[in-house]
Amino acid sequence: MELPWNTVVVTGVPGVGKTSLCRIVSDDLGYTYINYGDLMLSIAESRGLASTDSEVFSLDIEIQHSIWRDAALKIRDISRVLVDLHGVDQSTIGYIISLPVEIIKPDIIVLIESSKDNILGRRRNDTKERIIDTVKSLKEHMDILRITMATCSAILGCNLIIFQNDDFEICLENMKNVLGNKLE
Amino acid sequence: MELPWNTVVVTGVPGVGKTSLCRIVSDDLGYTYINYGDLMLSIAESRGLASTDSEVFSLDIEIQHSIWRDAALKIRDISRVLVDLHGVDQSTIGYIISLPVEIIKPDIIVLIESSKDNILGRRRNDTKERIIDTVKSLKEHMDILRITMATCSAILGCNLIIFQNDDFEICLENMKNVLGNKLE
Amino acid sequence: MELPWNTVVVTGVPGVGKTSLCRIVSDDLGYTYINYGDLMLSIAESRGLASTDSEVFSLDIEIQHSIWRDAALKIRDISRVLVDLHGVDQSTIGYIISLPVEIIKPDIIVLIESSKDNILGRRRNDTKERIIDTVKSLKEHMDILRITMATCSAILGCNLIIFQNDDFEICLENMKNVLGNKLE
Repeated sequence: MELPWNTVVVTGVPGVGKTSLCRIVSDDLGYTYINYGDLMLSIAESRGLASTDSEVFSLDIEIQHSIWRDAALKIRDISRVLVDLHGVDQSTIGYIISLPVEIIKPDIIVLIESSKDNILGRRRNDTKERIIDTVKSLKEHMDILRITMATCSAILGCNLIIFQNDDFEICLENMKNVLGNKLE
Repeated sequence: MELPWNTVVVTGVPGVGKTSLCRIVSDDLGYTYINYGDLMLSIAESRGLASTDSEVFSLDIEIQHSIWRDAALKIRDISRVLVDLHGVDQSTIGYIISLPVEIIKPDIIVLIESSKDNILGRRRNDTKERIIDTVKSLKEHMDILRITMATCSAILGCNLIIFQNDDFEICLENMKNVLGNKLE
Repeated sequence: MELPWNTVVVTGVPGVGKTSLCRIVSDDLGYTYINYGDLMLSIAESRGLASTDSEVFSLDIEIQHSIWRDAALKIRDISRVLVDLHGVDQSTIGYIISLPVEIIKPDIIVLIESSKDNILGRRRNDTKERIIDTVKSLKEHMDILRITMATCSAILGCNLIIFQNDDFEICLENMKNVLGNKLE
């Protein structure tokens, strides 16, 4: 099967079901799957700086930034890659854009959304989930993510597509149709 | 009458009533009216590539892109022009920004909005309308268009103005006031 | 106390309570407080062009632009500064972005929001307030401001944080936590 996109970026807030979708899509369509957070952790581990996600987030901000940048440089050299990342992260000092637009130039940005109830429900069942959101703060995060991804697509001149993950099988089918078939 | 703006871009989703407004405004204020889609079709026709809109949209994506670019280059050379285009198009591979910000530098971006009921009603009465939207997918398209036009105005450093086309005569009057009178 | 940010930009629509918050935060944390509108007025006064805000807004648009630019250049040279400005202004010719992104590079953009009722209530009690907004036009202005500030943060690569000013003391405390303490 011919893959039409070289670099796909998939974004979404924690708990939206992004990673499960991305893994299946990558397997079925033959993309190299990269989880940005896992790649940052493995870079940190190889330098003896951290061995868990929360240790990465506790590192000095300049060191975190350098790990984030090195992860982007590694990804840039991979062809036919699907990158799974949040896009915009919440932190105690505000929203931080985690899509490295100066290094990674995606052909398409995919944004996964879902109902707020679904997202908050998935987070309650996820033991490693750290984020405490109200419906209101989750809505704000989702608004900012949508705005920022539309902005990134305008800056980069790439496509943006939004999928609703309310029914997993339908969302998966829609993603595979778009990511496996550029020219229709 | 002195025209204050050199390049006006008017955007809006299909069915918002944009073209009727743009034609009258251009006639009354003396702008050269350009419908971006029609210009692309005429370029495609002159090259023997297509003779209908749907044939244009069926062309190879690289050829469509080259026609889109050539249309932008033609428009760039016209002074006192009002360009009527969607701004952001829906496609099977996601939202595509159709405002060529690297070639056309508008002095002002006008965004026409209307109630979702009005838009869906106008589409039902338009025999050439191809798009099937639900209220939810229309809202998403309108959100992305608003976000993207605000982004383009930030990137380009130009004004953005939003008009509600709920009452045609009032909207027309407001557009003429702004597009005919830069300094008040 | 060590100040972590060099340039902080605080934005919000008129009546959101921004200036009261900014003055206290600047005093308590040791930032140089700059009100952008006041700085523009003082530049206009020093050139004998205007002696009130409304006289500034009545100047030729090119002159206003040159004053706006000179204000930005002055601010750029101040270290540890907190700049209080609207971010996006309403005018008879549409929304105008008043954050000079080409001159001032903030480390963080702060956006203050509040309920529409609170904002309209504060405006009714402010004798110098000129803007007449409906709930609908206020919502549009707040949407465009949020979109534009997220865009500016994407373009500039800086943080964005949104505070709700529904309870003044809580909002003040949250602002001081973020603006006084970069690394947590």
